Amino acid sequence: MKSALMITALSCGLCWGQAADDCKPNVLNIPEAKYPCVYSDNRAMFRVAAPDAQKVTVRIGRGFDMTKGADGIWSVTTTPLVVGFHYYSVQIDGATVADPSTMTFFGSGWQNSGIEIPEAGDGDYYRAKDVPHGHVGEQWYYSKITGKWRRCFVYTPPDYGTNVKAKYPVLYLLHGWGEDESGWYTQGHVDFIMDNLIAAGKAKPMIIVMDNLNAVKPGESAALFAARGLVPAPGAAPPAPGAQPGRGAVPGGRGGGFNLSAFTDMMFTDLIPATERSYRVLPGPQNRAMAGLSMGGMQTFTTALNNLDKFAYLGGFSGSCGGRGGTFDAKTACGGAFADAAAFNKKVKVLFLGIGSVEGPGTKTFSDALTQAGIHNVYFESPGTAHEWLTWRRCLNDFAPRLFQ
Amino acid sequence: MKSALMITALSCGLCWGQAADDCKPNVLNIPEAKYPCVYSDNRAMFRVAAPDAQKVTVRIGRGFDMTKGADGIWSVTTTPLVVGFHYYSVQIDGATVADPSTMTFFGSGWQNSGIEIPEAGDGDYYRAKDVPHGHVGEQWYYSKITGKWRRCFVYTPPDYGTNVKAKYPVLYLLHGWGEDESGWYTQGHVDFIMDNLIAAGKAKPMIIVMDNLNAVKPGESAALFAARGLVPAPGAAPPAPGAQPGRGAVPGGRGGGFNLSAFTDMMFTDLIPATERSYRVLPGPQNRAMAGLSMGGMQTFTTALNNLDKFAYLGGFSGSCGGRGGTFDAKTACGGAFADAAAFNKKVKVLFLGIGSVEGPGTKTFSDALTQAGIHNVYFESPGTAHEWLTWRRCLNDFAPRLFQ
Repeated sequence: MKSALMITALSCGLCWGQAADDCKPNVLNIPEAKYPCVYSDNRAMFRVAAPDAQKVTVRIGRGFDMTKGADGIWSVTTTPLVVGFHYYSVQIDGATVADPSTMTFFGSGWQNSGIEIPEAGDGDYYRAKDVPHGHVGEQWYYSKITGKWRRCFVYTPPDYGTNVKAKYPVLYLLHGWGEDESGWYTQGHVDFIMDNLIAAGKAKPMIIVMDNLNAVKPGESAALFAARGLVPAPGAAPPAPGAQPGRGAVPGGRGGGFNLSAFTDMMFTDLIPATERSYRVLPGPQNRAMAGLSMGGMQTFTTALNNLDKFAYLGGFSGSCGGRGGTFDAKTACGGAFADAAAFNKKVKVLFLGIGSVEGPGTKTFSDALTQAGIHNVYFESPGTAHEWLTWRRCLNDFAPRLFQ
Repeated sequence: MKSALMITALSCGLCWGQAADDCKPNVLNIPEAKYPCVYSDNRAMFRVAAPDAQKVTVRIGRGFDMTKGADGIWSVTTTPLVVGFHYYSVQIDGATVADPSTMTFFGSGWQNSGIEIPEAGDGDYYRAKDVPHGHVGEQWYYSKITGKWRRCFVYTPPDYGTNVKAKYPVLYLLHGWGEDESGWYTQGHVDFIMDNLIAAGKAKPMIIVMDNLNAVKPGESAALFAARGLVPAPGAAPPAPGAQPGRGAVPGGRGGGFNLSAFTDMMFTDLIPATERSYRVLPGPQNRAMAGLSMGGMQTFTTALNNLDKFAYLGGFSGSCGGRGGTFDAKTACGGAFADAAAFNKKVKVLFLGIGSVEGPGTKTFSDALTQAGIHNVYFESPGTAHEWLTWRRCLNDFAPRLFQ
């Protein structure tokens, strides 16, 4: 019995050795944590200490059942994963929880674990480099529309603090379903992407306001959101309809939900005025852009297509008012916003539609139909990526240089 | 069988109703989550879905075993808890994880759950109010000492962006063991505390730089930290020696650890110069303060007592170079920093020692001994609070008005 255990221990020692050689710690791990780790062929190994559990599964897109080792640690190596950032969770005897080995990321309405499958060679654009750095900071403002204090994150470019007379154009940038205003900063690396673009002279220095797309008016129900049957982002578990802001640490709470028209009202009544009071902002639609990912793209198109006197640049990253199949009638689609192509093209300097190649052809079809109807638009396809943050980082990296030129 | 189930369901329905009446959702819950909740007598009720688990325990200071209901949800109501912010975790069949019902908070080197037991009546000072708001933003800088990019959070006061010729004094403010540079912002509400103090005319507008106290030089081991046998903060599980920065999302990682002298070198070589390059900062020791909590207080005293030409204000919140018992010899204690009381008092305008009343008498004893030795110091005791963030919020609220006057 003893020697059997020793053999197990030895085998396990070899396993660890091999893992350490080949398998690099996930960059989103908590400090010093070696697991999960990622192999060069994009498989990932997960390890979870749950000595008394009967069944442990990692859920990353699909479930991978783990096997218990003699040390009480469960482990599994996945099949190769799509490159990019993935939310994931662990199921321990029926409980869905975050893996305590990683930092956590707000998605699907709760704090998921995260793993990053590195891009081969080309991920440099979202890394911190030795270039001038802008700031990401929070901005609190009171919303008359929702009757609550709200928080957004604001990126100011590297020269904002020193070039104190300069005014800047503004991009309003939204996250997706179940996420919050921290998403573009924490998962998206908006700051490094912009710092690098600005340093290379590829993008104009701009302010980026990242708000929370969840907004309800007093008395409205957050359940509106669930009733709409909108599709949750991948990795969702457990779903929490009506996701709200991230710090979660302000006594008094911030109950709420999602409502496309409430957000639009809130944006014009509260968010844009608060931004223009607090920052040195260039006026007019030619200095204002709006973009968002997934549900944030839907929100962008809902808000902006009805207010084209206020925005000259629009971006939908894996989300817009189209692309979900069906026939496209330029006269009636998207509330008739594209009925007069010449008028539209005059107002909108850039209409950007981005998508990951793994997400299907809907956005390409939509873009082609728009082109057919005479609507100028940019179609961007991120190769080999899914409905996930790597697609959206690449979208921003392509979209931002097109703004305010 | 069916009717027995129905009775169970009915009873459970009643339980939920009662809980909703008396027990208010923890303000740190994810959106829409009703549990954990806090009763008016400071007991908390926790609920965890783990239908197939054999044993589930909430660990908040001590363990509270949960009971499984017919719906597969485990629950427990604690004894009354100390007021303030508590890290906590859940054990599910031997796995220590965060409760998926709350936002997560970086402490003890991982992302814990958090619960806030409200202060009766007097927590207003750390809440968002309708006053001018400063900004908390991140600042990246390259450290020559550690050979790595580092991130700090920086609070700039409300008028920083508009009063563009003004220069400001700086408080360098540190977190505790196992935490990171996000602690004062996320758990501590540094921004609201300062906004409210400044709006009331109680504190001078100042910049607050919140760095990560973990720093090692290239080749140094993070294990240094463990070897020192330093005492972890409460709620620690699982301990992760050498805790490092929070966003955890920068490819390339940030391995590291804790080293009192490396941090001091890093601070003077990298952090202070980076701050003074990037912000409009008033020069000289009379415009520079340093403070920290727990291990951050130890770091503060280690750094500043050896460099009293650089700081005129020092704060130790539940941590300093003394207060852990033993005899106090003013000539030799703390490296002899207090040997010449007159010289010390001339250099240090405020020496602040704060503690929670539940933490024991060590700090009071230390303060009395300093007074006995002729060293001017301020002793602040937070009534009814532990080695936790409510003590430190109150310390900052008392300390900040004493600075730069």
